[in-house]
Amino acid sequence: MPHVLTEAVADVGGPSRSSGLGVDSGLVVPSIPYELHKRLLAAVERWGLSLERRLETTGVCSSQMALTLLGGPNRLTPKNVHQRPTVVLLCGPHIQGAQGVSCGRHLANHGVEVILFLPNFVKMQESVTGEVHLYTRTGNKQVASVKGRTHREYREQVDCEMSCQCTGEGHDDLWAGFRDLPTSPVDLVINCLDCHENPMLREQSWYQSAADWANQNRAPVLSIDPAIGGPHQTVEAKWTLSLGLPLPLAETESRVYLCDIGIPKLVFQEVGICYCSPFGCKFVIPLHTP
Amino acid sequence: MPHVLTEAVADVGGPSRSSGLGVDSGLVVPSIPYELHKRLLAAVERWGLSLERRLETTGVCSSQMALTLLGGPNRLTPKNVHQRPTVVLLCGPHIQGAQGVSCGRHLANHGVEVILFLPNFVKMQESVTGEVHLYTRTGNKQVASVKGRTHREYREQVDCEMSCQCTGEGHDDLWAGFRDLPTSPVDLVINCLDCHENPMLREQSWYQSAADWANQNRAPVLSIDPAIGGPHQTVEAKWTLSLGLPLPLAETESRVYLCDIGIPKLVFQEVGICYCSPFGCKFVIPLHTP
Repeated sequence: MPHVLTEAVADVGGPSRSSGLGVDSGLVVPSIPYELHKRLLAAVERWGLSLERRLETTGVCSSQMALTLLGGPNRLTPKNVHQRPTVVLLCGPHIQGAQGVSCGRHLANHGVEVILFLPNFVKMQESVTGEVHLYTRTGNKQVASVKGRTHREYREQVDCEMSCQCTGEGHDDLWAGFRDLPTSPVDLVINCLDCHENPMLREQSWYQSAADWANQNRAPVLSIDPAIGGPHQTVEAKWTLSLGLPLPLAETESRVYLCDIGIPKLVFQEVGICYCSPFGCKFVIPLHTP
Repeated sequence: MPHVLTEAVADVGGPSRSSGLGVDSGLVVPSIPYELHKRLLAAVERWGLSLERRLETTGVCSSQMALTLLGGPNRLTPKNVHQRPTVVLLCGPHIQGAQGVSCGRHLANHGVEVILFLPNFVKMQESVTGEVHLYTRTGNKQVASVKGRTHREYREQVDCEMSCQCTGEGHDDLWAGFRDLPTSPVDLVINCLDCHENPMLREQSWYQSAADWANQNRAPVLSIDPAIGGPHQTVEAKWTLSLGLPLPLAETESRVYLCDIGIPKLVFQEVGICYCSPFGCKFVIPLHTP
C-alpha cells in the first residue's frame, strides 16, 4: 500500500524523479502508477465526482495557477484591458484536451486573451465538444491548425455555428480566429496535447506541428495533467500540474505542482492508498525534489 | 439593459443597499432581480454549464474563501492536525444546501473538522443526495437535527449506508456524528438554510431550531448564495457570498463578496446584461457600499 504524506519516502513509482516529491511542510508525496491513478478516478466517479465536475475543478484550479504565472493582480485588473496577456492553449481531442479548454474558458472570463488550438476531427469525445461549445461563449479565438484554414472551411464552420442560439457578438473575433497561431512570443503556452491512453498521438501531423510551434515560440509552457514520461518530452514544460497525485514523470527541469481535484480521503483508502492531504489551505501546491 | 462594471451606477435592483456595490478597481457591480439571475443560470445551463458543474465551482471557491476566513496558512498546514478548526454547515434540502455540502467536502479535504447539519426528509432533490453521498467519503460528521437522534434512528441510517460499497472506515465517526450540534463556539458557521424559491421554509421547525442554534453559538457566520432580503434576516451573517451577480440583499452589516461561477461574457449578453468581468485574477472579490 503506497503511503502518501508519511515522514518516510514510500517509493511506489519506479526510478523516475517524482517518485517521492516533498511539499513545503517537509512531508513526502510519492507518485503512483497510471493504473492506480485510473482506479482512483473510477472509484471517485462511482461516488459521484463525475468527469464533468472534475473538468470544472481542473479548469478553475489550473486557471488560478496560470493567472498567478501571468503576474496575478499586477497584470490582471478589470481596468487594464489594453494590456491583456495572451495565452495559447494546445489541446488534443481527449479528456486532457477538455481539461485545457475548461482552463481556457476560465482564463478568458478573467480577461486573458485566449487562443485555443484544437485539431478538427469528425468525431470527438462529448467531453471535448461540450467544453468547446461553452468556450465559444467567451468570444475568444479558436484555431484548428497551426497553418490556418481556407476561407471555404471557415465559412462552413461559421454557418454551422450560426444555427446555434447566438446573439451575434463575437463573430468578428471568429473571423480573426481562423488565422494562424501567433508567430511572436505569447505570454504563456498551456500544453494539453498528450493523452494518457494513446501515446501514439505524438506521431500524428497535427500533434507534431503544434509541438513544433510551441518549441519555436519562446513562451514558457505549463503542462496540465502530463502523460507518463517517455524517453523525451515533445514539448519542454517550465511547469507541470499533476491532478490528485502525480504520475511517474520524466526527468526534466520542469517544476512539478499538484492540484486538489476534490477526492475525499476514504476514496483514496478504497483503492489502497493511505492518504493524508498535503494541500493545507491551498488547491495547488509545489512539489520539490528531495 | 442593466450594465455591469460601467463607470456609472446602473440601478436595476430597487432601493436595497447592494443595488450598486463597488469593487476595488472603483467600478460598480449592480445587483440584478432574482428572475433575471434565474434566466442567466438557465441560459448558461443550455450552453453546458450544468448544475453539477456549478455545484463544484461554488464548492471550490466558497471553501477557498472559508479557508481564508479561518486563518489560511497560519491555521491550516498538513502538520497541525491537532489544531483543526471546526466548521458547522447548516444546509436546507435544496440547491443552496447542496452548494453548502459541496463546500463542506472541500473544507474536510483540507483538514477542517466539518459538521454538516441537514434535516432528514424522505424525498430530497438528487443534487442534495448526490452531494451528501460524496461528502460521506470525507469521514466527517453529519447531524439531522440540532437535538440529536435516537439510537434506533441512527441504526436504521447506518444499516442503509452499509449497503453501499464501503470500506468500513469512518463508521466510528458516524456514531459520533449523530450527537447534537456543539454547544461551545465553533470557528465558523456556514449558512445555506435559505432557498430562493421557498421563503416559507423559515416557518418550519428544523429551520428555526438551526437558526436558533446559530444565533446562540458565538461563531461568525458566512452565508453562501443568500436569499433576497426580507424585512429581517433569521441568521445574521458577518460575510455573504453572492454567485455570479448579487441579488438585492437586505440592509445588514454583512460584508458582501462575489464569486465567479464560470459564466462566459456572451451568456450574460444573451439575457440582456452588458457584462465586463470585475474579478481581475481572483474568483472571489469583496464588494463595497458606495
